Amino acid sequence: MFATETRIRVRYGETDQMGVVYYGHYAQYFEVGRTEAIRQLGLTYRELEESGILMPVVSMEVNYHQPARYDDELILRTRILELPRTMITFSTDIYKQDETHLTAGSVTLAFIRKENGKPCRPPEKILDLLRPHFL
Amino acid sequence: MFATETRIRVRYGETDQMGVVYYGHYAQYFEVGRTEAIRQLGLTYRELEESGILMPVVSMEVNYHQPARYDDELILRTRILELPRTMITFSTDIYKQDETHLTAGSVTLAFIRKENGKPCRPPEKILDLLRPHFL
Amino acid sequence: MFATETRIRVRYGETDQMGVVYYGHYAQYFEVGRTEAIRQLGLTYRELEESGILMPVVSMEVNYHQPARYDDELILRTRILELPRTMITFSTDIYKQDETHLTAGSVTLAFIRKENGKPCRPPEKILDLLRPHFL
Amino acid sequence: MFATETRIRVRYGETDQMGVVYYGHYAQYFEVGRTEAIRQLGLTYRELEESGILMPVVSMEVNYHQPARYDDELILRTRILELPRTMITFSTDIYKQDETHLTAGSVTLAFIRKENGKPCRPPEKILDLLRPHFL
Repeated sequence: MFATETRIRVRYGETDQMGVVYYGHYAQYFEVGRTEAIRQLGLTYRELEESGILMPVVSMEVNYHQPARYDDELILRTRILELPRTMITFSTDIYKQDETHLTAGSVTLAFIRKENGKPCRPPEKILDLLRPHFL
Repeated sequence: MFATETRIRVRYGETDQMGVVYYGHYAQYFEVGRTEAIRQLGLTYRELEESGILMPVVSMEVNYHQPARYDDELILRTRILELPRTMITFSTDIYKQDETHLTAGSVTLAFIRKENGKPCRPPEKILDLLRPHFL
Repeated sequence: MFATETRIRVRYGETDQMGVVYYGHYAQYFEVGRTEAIRQLGLTYRELEESGILMPVVSMEVNYHQPARYDDELILRTRILELPRTMITFSTDIYKQDETHLTAGSVTLAFIRKENGKPCRPPEKILDLLRPHFL
Repeated sequence: MFATETRIRVRYGETDQMGVVYYGHYAQYFEVGRTEAIRQLGLTYRELEESGILMPVVSMEVNYHQPARYDDELILRTRILELPRTMITFSTDIYKQDETHLTAGSVTLAFIRKENGKPCRPPEKILDLLRPHFL
């Protein structure tokens, strides 16, 4: 398993008139979680794209337990539970500072080549960096 | 079953650098779909809130089959498959004009009272409007 | 002068905890206004991009007079007040159904070539379509 | 003058198909800038709202010099140039790590009482914290 943690602060524009973070914004929080997970692994998603690999999202599941509020500092814990074969799944749990569990999300992405839009295997570079975490 | 249809056009700001609609924006498309579903049922979500009922989202599942692109006119088909008891689930399928199936989403919402934040039964008004569709 | 009108309905996710549309979302409303203005002129921004022209925004000014609220149907009136030379300015005024003037925005865009990122003259196609409105 | 600095990293979902940050997202960046400015001043906007003061935006001006890109770490420099009387203006300049000046924004907000929606003077607490910076 590969696990990382990052933090974000809720922006005013991310709340809705219910006074809490709009449910649609969690997708972007999960994206921040996995961007930082990839960075902590030792590469960047930006480099991956520049090397010709795109990673479109194929599915997402979210469970909303408790709401996040404006100016909350959120802890994003992102895990890769399995070595990717054709796809890669990132699980992100979001907590408040007091460890209240707010949200659990799971996002699965494919690997495709930019040049032809066709699915491809995960780049060796990612696999090499992940393998030591899955012994 | 209760089924409705509405249309939206993809905005430029909803695309990302992959050249397609960012995966996080579908939550808002689903919201448009269920807002219109409730309206076509004969009430509005705005009235529901004004009458003291909030409907926070408790879970969401999305499958992304094909990407939507800038300026595409999308068809949102939203269905309520079961008469709600404590929660209500809206299933929204998104199609292009040529009937390509782009995205399938399912969003479950609770009913809570604004005054105390406690879960409550679905308002009789909704149930009365839905019942004829579930005979 | 070239003037057009289009309508949009405020989405829940566009409100913030003040109970009104977040000030940042008007940029997207203005974009909807100018997308429709270009369409009513007789071409589409999508075609422009596909023909190799990008139109990055260089400046924006917004005056917020009255707030818009969830589910409001807004009237967007977009005008091009001058025949573009190196840049083009779209002025969009947003009204409620009862003609209350909510917001006034002005957005100026440049024309650049996709291939080299360099500024260029407005495409002849746009100028030809606009000229009859500026006699 | 009161001046502060904070940093944010561009999220994927903030880019558009032009490959750069969508012009509409800068309003949220400016909001992050002023939220941190208020925090560094010694209070929080959240406390202000909880004490019954709302600060709706009344106008915004933005000049876009250079684009920001995915994963860029941006430096937001926010200044209050005048002691507020009825309104307060925050000027935010956005820079890349290499000090390229990307964007200049100016946002003016009013002070209103939550209970009646009426304009009011700036809270004494803010004025007391600001005065030493305007001697």
